[in-house]
Amino acid sequence: MSQRPRNGLYAQSGGMTAVINASAAGVIETARSFAKAGKGGRPAIGKIFAGRNGILGVLTEDLIDTSRESASAISALKHTPGGAFGSCRYKLKGFDENRVQFERLIEVFRAHDIGYFFYNGGNDSADTCYKVSKISARLGYPVSCIHVPKTVDNDLALTDNSPGFGSVAKYVATSMREAAFDIASMAKTSTKIFVMEVMGRHAGWITAAVGLAADKGHDIPLLLLFPEVIFDEKRFLARVAALVRSHGYCCIGVSEGLRAPDGTFFSEVGIKDAFGHAQLGGAGELVAKLVRQKLGYKYHWALADYLQRSARHLASKTDLEQSYAVGRAAVEYALRGLNAVMPALRRTSQAPYRWTLTPAPLARIANREKKLPASFIGAGGFGITGKAREYLVPLVQGESPPPYRNGLPDYPVLKNVPVPKRLGVFTV
Amino acid sequence: MSQRPRNGLYAQSGGMTAVINASAAGVIETARSFAKAGKGGRPAIGKIFAGRNGILGVLTEDLIDTSRESASAISALKHTPGGAFGSCRYKLKGFDENRVQFERLIEVFRAHDIGYFFYNGGNDSADTCYKVSKISARLGYPVSCIHVPKTVDNDLALTDNSPGFGSVAKYVATSMREAAFDIASMAKTSTKIFVMEVMGRHAGWITAAVGLAADKGHDIPLLLLFPEVIFDEKRFLARVAALVRSHGYCCIGVSEGLRAPDGTFFSEVGIKDAFGHAQLGGAGELVAKLVRQKLGYKYHWALADYLQRSARHLASKTDLEQSYAVGRAAVEYALRGLNAVMPALRRTSQAPYRWTLTPAPLARIANREKKLPASFIGAGGFGITGKAREYLVPLVQGESPPPYRNGLPDYPVLKNVPVPKRLGVFTV
Repeated sequence: MSQRPRNGLYAQSGGMTAVINASAAGVIETARSFAKAGKGGRPAIGKIFAGRNGILGVLTEDLIDTSRESASAISALKHTPGGAFGSCRYKLKGFDENRVQFERLIEVFRAHDIGYFFYNGGNDSADTCYKVSKISARLGYPVSCIHVPKTVDNDLALTDNSPGFGSVAKYVATSMREAAFDIASMAKTSTKIFVMEVMGRHAGWITAAVGLAADKGHDIPLLLLFPEVIFDEKRFLARVAALVRSHGYCCIGVSEGLRAPDGTFFSEVGIKDAFGHAQLGGAGELVAKLVRQKLGYKYHWALADYLQRSARHLASKTDLEQSYAVGRAAVEYALRGLNAVMPALRRTSQAPYRWTLTPAPLARIANREKKLPASFIGAGGFGITGKAREYLVPLVQGESPPPYRNGLPDYPVLKNVPVPKRLGVFTV
Repeated sequence: MSQRPRNGLYAQSGGMTAVINASAAGVIETARSFAKAGKGGRPAIGKIFAGRNGILGVLTEDLIDTSRESASAISALKHTPGGAFGSCRYKLKGFDENRVQFERLIEVFRAHDIGYFFYNGGNDSADTCYKVSKISARLGYPVSCIHVPKTVDNDLALTDNSPGFGSVAKYVATSMREAAFDIASMAKTSTKIFVMEVMGRHAGWITAAVGLAADKGHDIPLLLLFPEVIFDEKRFLARVAALVRSHGYCCIGVSEGLRAPDGTFFSEVGIKDAFGHAQLGGAGELVAKLVRQKLGYKYHWALADYLQRSARHLASKTDLEQSYAVGRAAVEYALRGLNAVMPALRRTSQAPYRWTLTPAPLARIANREKKLPASFIGAGGFGITGKAREYLVPLVQGESPPPYRNGLPDYPVLKNVPVPKRLGVFTV
C-alpha cells in the first residue's frame, strides 16, 4: 500500500537567539534528506511547513511552505539571526480551560496532513509541545511532538546546556573584556567604573558568562551581581572601592534580575538620590548611579539588550553546531516514532569537550527551570568558581562568522510563501 | 660627525577607539625599521618612549620604554582594543596661562633626548600638539610634533575620515541590523520598537552610520535621530506609527546628543510621564519611553556605550589599515623634518575606494570640528542620503578578527617597563 508521507510543522517560540535559525535549517535539511531517502523505502516525511509567528500562525492557519525555498536559502539560515518565520509570546492554557484552541490546532494539523510537530522554544513551549502531544492522542489524531530546545537563558531542564546560550555567553564575555581594556586606559583621569547589564531575569547563567571576560591571561577587576544573590550594598561598595584601589578601575556585570534585600527586583525598588527621592530604572543603571553617589567615581554603563541575543556575527561555533544538531535530531526522533521528547545535550567528555544528544521526556522538562548551581557562584557572591568556568568555557568555543557584504553581515530573508488555506477563519 | 639619533615620544589622548593601538604599532614598528636603517646612513630615530596615561605621563616623567617590548608584542597591538599605554582627559591651557606646564614638557623632552613627539588623539590633542610645537620653538628646544589622528566621532578637520570611526560605524550598523532581525520576529505579539543610543554628542556621524543597517538587501524600517536635527515629537511619532503599520515594527537609532526644541540636550530636558512629572535620562531611553507612552508599543532599548568603541572583534579592516598607516606616516613625516602636521586621509577614488595620506597643518585642524554635511541627512531628517551611504560604505569594509583563545578574543597586555626618571617630582 502506497501512502503519502505526512508533513511536518515547525514553529519558533518566545525570545530569539543568534542561532535559532540553525535549528530551523537542521529540521528542514534533515527532513529534505529523508524525503528523498523515503522513495527508496525508508521512513519518510513530506513537506515542512512553518507557523508564521509561531503557534499563532498554526492557530490561524497562517502557514509557510518551506519547500518553496532553495537549498541555499535554507542553508543561509545557519548564519542569520532572529527568527526566520517569526515568533510569538503566546502560551496555550490547559486543555480544559482552552479546549477550542487545542481542537483548532488538531484541525489545522489534519487539514494539512501534519504528522510531526517541531516546536522550537524554551520552558513554556516545552509545556505547549507536551500538551499538544497529549491532546492529539486524546482527539484521535496522532502527531509526533518533538520539542527543539532554544533559550539564551540556559534554564531548560534535563539538558547540559540550552542552544542559544553559548552565543550570548560569548558575546557578553567578549564585550566585557573589550570594554575593560577601554576603561583601563581611561581610568587615570576619567571613567573608573563600567557597568554592563545582561539578560537572565530569574537565573544568573548569562551573568556567570560575563565572568569569563577575566581569566589567567586577562587580569580584569570584575564583579558580578547575580539574581541569585541578594544585593548587599555595603559589601558591594567595599569590593568596588578595593578594586579601584588595586587596579585603578572596576568592571561590573549586573543581571537585569538583581534582587533587593526584600527579595523584589532591584530595578523596581530603585535607589534614593541625594534628596531622598526614589530613582527607578534598569538594575545596571541603578548600580552605576549608586557607585557614583556613594564612592564618587565616574561611570559608564551599557545595556546590551537585544544585541546580546542577536549578535550572529560573534556566535559560538559550538552553539551553532548544537543548534543545528537539535533540529536534525528532532526529525530523526520523529521518524523513529518518538513523541513528547526533546533532544537533550549530554556532556560526554570535559577535555576534550564532547557532547551527544539523547531524547528527554517533555513531562520532566515542561515548566521546570534549571537553576544556576550554588557551586558556580564564588568570590563571596561576586564571581564565578572554577567549576563554573569549566562548565562555561566549552560552550563559547569556536567562531563561525556570517558572510559579509558591503562591510556588514549579509542576512537574507526567506520568501515565506504561504500555504493555501483550507479552513475557515479562526480568531485568537 | 657621529650623532646619536634622538628619541621619539608617543602618547594617547582622550577617548579610545577599537584600533588606536594599531596607530601605536605603526609608530613603533616604523621607528624600529628606521632605527636599523639609520646605521646605514639614512635619517634615524632612537627609542620610542610612551607617556603613561597620555600627556599626564609626560608631565610627570612617567614614561614607558617600548624598546623593552618584543616585536610580536608590538605587532599584537594591531588586534588589541583600549589604549596600551593608558590615556587621559587633560587639556593643556594656553602658554600664557600655563607656562609652567609647557616648560616642564620641554624639560622632560630635553632630559630624555626627545626629538619627535607623536600625539594620538582628536581635536583637543591636535590643539595640544600644535601648542607644543610652538612652545618648543620658543624655548629653543626643537621637536617635530606630529599629530596622529584618532576619534570615533569622525569630526577631525582636513581629513576625509578619522581613524577609529570606521570600526564604530561597522559595529553600530551591524548591531542595529542584527537586532532588527530579532525585533522583526517578535513584533507580532511582543516588542515592536527597538531603540539604540549611540555616541556622537555634537555630530551625527555615528548616527548616520547606523543608517547602513538598512540597504537594498535589508528592508529594515529604521529612523535616525541626529544631534543636528531638532527633535520634532509629532513628526517623529507619526513616522514611527507609519513604519509599524507598514512593517509591523520600527528601529530607531538615537544620538546621545539629540536636541530638544529649545536647543538643549533632550536628555537634560526629558519627557513628562503620565502624571506630568519630568523624566530625565539618556536620549535613547527617553525616546523609547515616549513612543510607549504616546503610541502604546512595547519597546526594547540598548545602550552600546563603550562596547561600540572597544569592539575590536568587529573592527573594520579599512579602519585598521588606516590607523596603522597614520602611525607609520607620522614617523616618516617627522624624519622628513615636518612639524605641526597631521597625516590626513584623502579619498582618491570612490569606486574602487582608494585613499592616500597627506600632511595637513595643525594650525587648520586644532579645535575645529568637521560637521556632518546637511547633504548627508535625508528622509525628512530621519535618515541618510545616497551621498552619505557612498561616503560611509568604504569605511566599514573588511574584517580583521583578533586571535581567539578559549573561545574569546585574546588581548595581550604590554610589560610597560618604566623609563628611569631623571628629573624631580612635578605635581599636575
